[in-house]
Amino acid sequence: MTESDLPVAQLTPGRWGDPAYHVEVPAAALEALKHLGVHRPTPAPRPAPAERPELTGAQLAFLSSVVGAEHVASDLETRWAHTRGYSTTDLLRFRAGDTSDMPDAVVYPASHDEVAALLAGCAEHDLAVVPYSGGTSVVGGLAATRRFVTVDLRRLDQLLDLDEVSRTATLQAGVRGPAAERLLADRGYTLGHFPQSYEGASIGGYAAARSSGQSSAGYGRFDQMVVGLTLATPRGTVELGRAPMSAAGPDLRQLILGSEGAFGIITSVVVRIRPRPTERHFEGWRFESFDAGLTAVRRLAQDGPLPTVLRLSDEIETAVNLADPDVLGGGSGGVLAIIGFDGPYNQATADVLTAAGGENLGEGPGETWRTGRYRAPYLRDPLLDEGALVETLETAAFWSRIPALKTAVTEALVGALSATPPLVLCHISHVYETGASLYFTVVCAQSDDPVEQWRTAKYAANQAIADAGGTISHHHGVGTDHRAAYHAEIGSLAVEALRAVKHTFDPDGVLNPGILI
Amino acid sequence: MTESDLPVAQLTPGRWGDPAYHVEVPAAALEALKHLGVHRPTPAPRPAPAERPELTGAQLAFLSSVVGAEHVASDLETRWAHTRGYSTTDLLRFRAGDTSDMPDAVVYPASHDEVAALLAGCAEHDLAVVPYSGGTSVVGGLAATRRFVTVDLRRLDQLLDLDEVSRTATLQAGVRGPAAERLLADRGYTLGHFPQSYEGASIGGYAAARSSGQSSAGYGRFDQMVVGLTLATPRGTVELGRAPMSAAGPDLRQLILGSEGAFGIITSVVVRIRPRPTERHFEGWRFESFDAGLTAVRRLAQDGPLPTVLRLSDEIETAVNLADPDVLGGGSGGVLAIIGFDGPYNQATADVLTAAGGENLGEGPGETWRTGRYRAPYLRDPLLDEGALVETLETAAFWSRIPALKTAVTEALVGALSATPPLVLCHISHVYETGASLYFTVVCAQSDDPVEQWRTAKYAANQAIADAGGTISHHHGVGTDHRAAYHAEIGSLAVEALRAVKHTFDPDGVLNPGILI
Repeated sequence: MTESDLPVAQLTPGRWGDPAYHVEVPAAALEALKHLGVHRPTPAPRPAPAERPELTGAQLAFLSSVVGAEHVASDLETRWAHTRGYSTTDLLRFRAGDTSDMPDAVVYPASHDEVAALLAGCAEHDLAVVPYSGGTSVVGGLAATRRFVTVDLRRLDQLLDLDEVSRTATLQAGVRGPAAERLLADRGYTLGHFPQSYEGASIGGYAAARSSGQSSAGYGRFDQMVVGLTLATPRGTVELGRAPMSAAGPDLRQLILGSEGAFGIITSVVVRIRPRPTERHFEGWRFESFDAGLTAVRRLAQDGPLPTVLRLSDEIETAVNLADPDVLGGGSGGVLAIIGFDGPYNQATADVLTAAGGENLGEGPGETWRTGRYRAPYLRDPLLDEGALVETLETAAFWSRIPALKTAVTEALVGALSATPPLVLCHISHVYETGASLYFTVVCAQSDDPVEQWRTAKYAANQAIADAGGTISHHHGVGTDHRAAYHAEIGSLAVEALRAVKHTFDPDGVLNPGILI
Repeated sequence: MTESDLPVAQLTPGRWGDPAYHVEVPAAALEALKHLGVHRPTPAPRPAPAERPELTGAQLAFLSSVVGAEHVASDLETRWAHTRGYSTTDLLRFRAGDTSDMPDAVVYPASHDEVAALLAGCAEHDLAVVPYSGGTSVVGGLAATRRFVTVDLRRLDQLLDLDEVSRTATLQAGVRGPAAERLLADRGYTLGHFPQSYEGASIGGYAAARSSGQSSAGYGRFDQMVVGLTLATPRGTVELGRAPMSAAGPDLRQLILGSEGAFGIITSVVVRIRPRPTERHFEGWRFESFDAGLTAVRRLAQDGPLPTVLRLSDEIETAVNLADPDVLGGGSGGVLAIIGFDGPYNQATADVLTAAGGENLGEGPGETWRTGRYRAPYLRDPLLDEGALVETLETAAFWSRIPALKTAVTEALVGALSATPPLVLCHISHVYETGASLYFTVVCAQSDDPVEQWRTAKYAANQAIADAGGTISHHHGVGTDHRAAYHAEIGSLAVEALRAVKHTFDPDGVLNPGILI
C-alpha cells in the first residue's frame, strides 16, 4: 500500500481532544480497567472559562497593524482552543475550566516578515509571545508564565522550494504533517516523518521540539533532516545552513532546534527529502522476552540492515495493547516487535531477527499497528471519562543502561502510584548505534486529585531517569514540565549559556516565558 | 590488508614540517612546475627567533603549582615548536623567523582537573590560553591575539572507558589518531577517523574543529561520532551526552564541537566505535569527466550503497597527481575516483558506478592512493624550497550549487593569481544526501611576497565561496583566517549569541583570544 498509509486528505488540522475525533474505548479495555480499580467518576462540573482582562486598545492596534485586524482573534472560543497542549495534566485542567494558561489573543501572521515585525514590537507593547503550530505539546510547552499572545503559524503553510538535485525542500513552519506529505507527494517525494502527533503537529513544532517519528530507523529524527532554517527573533533574523555539514564553528542549527520558541520563532526549514516509496511492508515478530527482543533490535541498530520502522513492546505492552489475543499464538506469552520497510522487503533484516530468536508473525500484526498508529492519543479523553489516569513519558540512554533504566522507571512509577496500582507498559521505538529510547505508558485509577497524583508519579520517574543515566526526554521536549530535570541534566553552567543566548535574541524576555529556561 | 593500512606503530607524534619527515619532490613534479614559472628562490635568511618578554615569577609559580614545575616549559625551542599550525602562510612566517605568534610558555597538564585548575586561575594571573593537541591547524587556529600560554594536552592520552554493549569509547583529548586506533584495535574496535592530519592530530582537535576523515562516507564526520564530551572552562566543567540523541533542549554537544577552544578545553569525548574490519578494499574508477563522476557519486550519496571511502578528482587533479600516467589508459583523459570498503567488497556499489558510466581500474590506483594518502602535506616544505606556492582550501554546499561553486572558486583563484598563473586542482571527498565538499589545491610560482600573494588569492576565493552559496569550511575550521568570512556567513546576531556563550564560560576572555569570534 502507499496512499492508504498517508491519511492526508480526509484529515482536518485539528487537535487531540476535538469531539469530532471521539474514539470509543474498546469493551475489552474497559473490562481490563476494572482490574485496576478504575470506576467512572462523578463527572466534574466543567465551568465555562472565566474571562481575563482583555488587551488594551493600543496592544490590539499594534497586533492589527502587523497582521491585519481580521487576523487577530481575542474571542473566548479561539483563546480557549489555543490553551495548553495535550498532556493528561493539560486535559484535566482543561476539563476543570482552568483558564490560567489562556492567551489574551491569537494572531495569525502570514509571512516571516510579519512574524519578525510582531516580535520586534512586542516588548514595546508589553506582550509576551507563545508560538503555536500544532498545539500537540505534552510537556507544558504552551504555558507561558506571564500573560501572552499566541502566534498561530497556520498561515505559513507553503512549500517554498523543492531542489530535486540536492533533494531538499523548504517548508514553512505552519505546514502540518499530512500537508507536508501531500505537497511533497505531488512532486514524488516524502519527508518520512511520522510522529504520533503527525495529524496535528507542524513543521515548526517538529523543529522547535526535536521531534522523532515512527520511521526514525529509516529516515532519522527531524533534527537530522533539517539542513537549514530561518529564525525570527525580536532583534532580527538568523538564517543558517549553507551546506549539509560544515566546520565553520559550532552547528548553530542544532542550537536552534530544540529551543522550543525561547530563542525565536522558526518560520521555515530546509529539510532533506527522499523519493516517495512505491511499496511498503509491515510485519510482526515475536520474541520470547523483552530481553531477547532487545538483543535483536540492538543487533540491527549496530550492524544493520535497519528497517524503516523498528519497534519492540515489552511483555505488558504486548499483552495489554493487542486487539487480537491470538496474534502471539493463543496467549503463549512473549513480546511483539513491529518492523516496516519503505521500499522492498529486506530479507537480510528478517534474517537477523530470525538468528536472534525471532518468529515471523506475518503482515497481520504489522498492519494492525500501522492502521492504528495515530489513534492512541484520542483514547485519553474517553479513558479520563471512565475514571482511568493514562499518561506517557519517555527517555533515552546508551544501550548498556537500557535494562536498568527500564526497571528503575517502572519501579519508581509503581512505587509512587501504590495507592492506585498501575500498569506500566514500555516499548522501544527509536534506535541508534549507541543506544535507544524507552517509552512508557502508565494506566491506573484516578485518585481524587489526579493532577497531583500524576505530578508525584512523574517526579519519581524523573528522578529514576536521572539516577539511571537517561535523558529527560528523547522526543517530547522540555516545556515547563521537564525544566527542572533538564537543568539538572545539563548543569547550571550550560543553563547560563542558554540564558545568554536567549538574552541576545530576546533581551526583554517576550518569547515563551518559562519554557525551557 | 588490515594492519598495513594503519601505520601506527612506526609513527612518532610529530608535526608536519619536521625535518625527520622530509619528503623528496618527485622529479616529474619538479619538471611540471617549470611550466608554471617556478624557480628556486634565493634561500631567505632564517633568523633565529627573537626572545620575547618572559613570564613573571608569579605567573610561572602559578603554572607550576597546577601541573608541577617539570611540566612547564619556557625554553625557546619548546615555545618555537608550538608556534602556529601548518598553513602555507604559517610555514612562510615560520621560515622568516617571525615570532609574533610564539607562546610564552608551554604547560602539560595530566588530567581534566589540572586543565580546569589552569583555566580557573589564568585570569587572575593575566594569562591567555591556547589549547594545543596536534598542532595541525591550517586556518590560523594557534595564533591568539595576545600573549599566551599554550596548554599541550599530550599527557591526556588515555582510553578511559570502552563500553562494548553501547559501542562507545571514552578517549582523552590528547590521544593522537594512531594511538586511538591502536588502543581500540587492542579491543577489536576502530574509530574509523582518518583525516589527512591523522598522524599528528588528536581527539581534542578533531572535536574542537569538526574534523572529517577520508572514510567519512562510511563512518561519518567526527562531530557525528561524538555522543558525549567533557569541557573545562574558566568557570567550571560542562558534561554533556546522556543518550545518543535527546529532545532535552538544543543539542549542546554541537555547540561545543567546532568551538575551537574559545569556550573551553575539551578534555575527553565519548565516541561511537565499530568492530575493526577484517578486510579492506580500495580501487580506482575512471569517468569521462568530472561532471559524469559527480552524477555517479551523488547517486551513491543519495540512493546508496555508499562505500567507506568515496573520492572524485577533477580533470586537473587527475592529470597532475597521478604518478603513473598509464593508469587512465595512456593519457586518455577523464577523471579518477577512488572507492574503499571497510569490510567485504560491495558489488552493488560498483554496479551503481558502472551504470553511471564508470570504468573499473582495479586495485592499483586504489592502493596508490591508500599508501600515499597522508603524504601530501609533507611536500609543502620542499615545494616552498623550490619556489612554488602550494596551498589548499575547501568548502561544501548543496548538490545543486556544486558545479557553479567549483567554477567560481577556480576562476577567483586564477584571476587573483594572474601574475603567477596557477594550477587549480579539485576533488570531492565527503558526500551527504543533500550535498558535498569541494577541496582545492593551488600551485603557482612564489611572488616576492608570498604571504601577501596568498592573502589576496584566499580573499578572492572566500568571496567566491560566499557568493556561490558555499560554507567557508567543510572540515578545516575557522581559526583566525576564516573569522571574517565566518561572521558574514552566520550573520551578526548569531555572532553575538556565540560571544554571549563565550562570555558565560570565559568572562575574562582568556581562552584562545581572536579565534572563531
